[in-house]
Amino acid sequence: MQEQLKKYPVRIQIPVAWGDMDAAAHVNNTVYLKWGETARIAYFEAAGIDIGFKSAAGPILAWQDCKYIFPMTFPDTAVVGIRCTEIQSDRLFFEAAMFTEKHGRIAAINKFCIVPYDFQKLVKVEIPEAWLRGIEGLEGGEIKSSGI
Amino acid sequence: MQEQLKKYPVRIQIPVAWGDMDAAAHVNNTVYLKWGETARIAYFEAAGIDIGFKSAAGPILAWQDCKYIFPMTFPDTAVVGIRCTEIQSDRLFFEAAMFTEKHGRIAAINKFCIVPYDFQKLVKVEIPEAWLRGIEGLEGGEIKSSGI
Amino acid sequence: MQEQLKKYPVRIQIPVAWGDMDAAAHVNNTVYLKWGETARIAYFEAAGIDIGFKSAAGPILAWQDCKYIFPMTFPDTAVVGIRCTEIQSDRLFFEAAMFTEKHGRIAAINKFCIVPYDFQKLVKVEIPEAWLRGIEGLEGGEIKSSGI
Amino acid sequence: MQEQLKKYPVRIQIPVAWGDMDAAAHVNNTVYLKWGETARIAYFEAAGIDIGFKSAAGPILAWQDCKYIFPMTFPDTAVVGIRCTEIQSDRLFFEAAMFTEKHGRIAAINKFCIVPYDFQKLVKVEIPEAWLRGIEGLEGGEIKSSGI
Repeated sequence: MQEQLKKYPVRIQIPVAWGDMDAAAHVNNTVYLKWGETARIAYFEAAGIDIGFKSAAGPILAWQDCKYIFPMTFPDTAVVGIRCTEIQSDRLFFEAAMFTEKHGRIAAINKFCIVPYDFQKLVKVEIPEAWLRGIEGLEGGEIKSSGI
Repeated sequence: MQEQLKKYPVRIQIPVAWGDMDAAAHVNNTVYLKWGETARIAYFEAAGIDIGFKSAAGPILAWQDCKYIFPMTFPDTAVVGIRCTEIQSDRLFFEAAMFTEKHGRIAAINKFCIVPYDFQKLVKVEIPEAWLRGIEGLEGGEIKSSGI
Repeated sequence: MQEQLKKYPVRIQIPVAWGDMDAAAHVNNTVYLKWGETARIAYFEAAGIDIGFKSAAGPILAWQDCKYIFPMTFPDTAVVGIRCTEIQSDRLFFEAAMFTEKHGRIAAINKFCIVPYDFQKLVKVEIPEAWLRGIEGLEGGEIKSSGI
Repeated sequence: MQEQLKKYPVRIQIPVAWGDMDAAAHVNNTVYLKWGETARIAYFEAAGIDIGFKSAAGPILAWQDCKYIFPMTFPDTAVVGIRCTEIQSDRLFFEAAMFTEKHGRIAAINKFCIVPYDFQKLVKVEIPEAWLRGIEGLEGGEIKSSGI
């Protein structure tokens, strides 16, 4: 797990709540997506990307998927690593890997696509330069870029 | 149940989702409070009370309690009746009764206290006249008022 | 919307709750996945597929994605249509289309993969005959099957 | 805050998630109750009280209330202290105090009543001796007992 986490520049830990489990006595599928959202916000914070909903360029979630690999249960702690995997001219792709601390193995992988949006003009915009610099600062220039 | 519902001027129905159940295979305790919130919003709408968070008088939840009487399960529909039970000069009390349609009986009672708040000046304010008229229109003047 | 809904054999309606919105004042991304779960359960019910977690073949969610097309807000009602899109020997693919009743247009598409699992032996199993007959009864033999 | 926390024998910390906020841009009222549930489970664990739903004596939530004192926002960490406040022959009362770490002050107080229930015979039962010893071990005999 520690070895696998190394490639994710931003990492967070979230305690599993008993109430995160559903009637199947497993963490409900939507909870992993909430963890992914939390990781996303932490990444934006670390990259200096403003998530304000009134700015000229804020991030919008356009798509996401989640592969469920190992069912987590309470008590446990989710260890989530997140990285940017691809940059296109008008969208960004990320990957959040979720590990169960109790079992020391991967539990789920949440990938998602972010689109920069102008909340004043209500249109999609190009990725701001500041976002690219912030991401580069975290990822060290190892992201696969395309279409720019 | 229909007889008991009569004293509530605003009534809503909410389908129970499978995901509302927790690992005890009952609707989780927090879900009833979310239903209460939904009923509260419906009541405010019916009474013409603006819930905007930038206005000179918006409702704030200051306190609530919930008595759990009968554990609900999926599938079912929650039938929620809500009424104003008391008006004081700077606060309002409400009661939301939650019935299980499947069993035709009461499942929970959620009471709460609402305080009118000036979101511009950041201070508590007196209950606006328009609120009182809206509530009176729904309740027909049968509320116990005190301290006004 | 009504035209688009026709191809989905199972359809449900879910009222949007005020509390489904997040700080961006839109329905939170995880809520659409909860609606997808609700639609999934309704489909299983209609197809006679037992979701019990102790049976010899119960459905497990192995993967899902969601494309966010139009941001929903309170008040509104989500109209969700669901259909089976592909049957493989050991997994099933579904699509849940989510419409905003208020705007009469599609808001999100949630696709997912279900794997039949033996909760007693803790192993994946082949799709039970009863599942296939139940799905065929709903879909009318129009599903693309592969790998069987 | 540290001074106030001292009287609570069990304390937990829970990071506030961005998704815990609602459209008012405050942590939603139901989230505090979920934190209370998490604190409750931690207390039961510390006291050696089995929360299993098939045992001859498991805890059921019969009632709870919450006083909202200060609105929390993301980012922050909730620091929750919990203690038993009263023991009656067939029910227990607890208090969970919730502090905002960011502001170093109390945000909410969640009180609740727990009833021991026999999940096999489906009846309320007296408080098991083991529960009383576990609670005494945590509280040091300072609880106000009544009706025993």
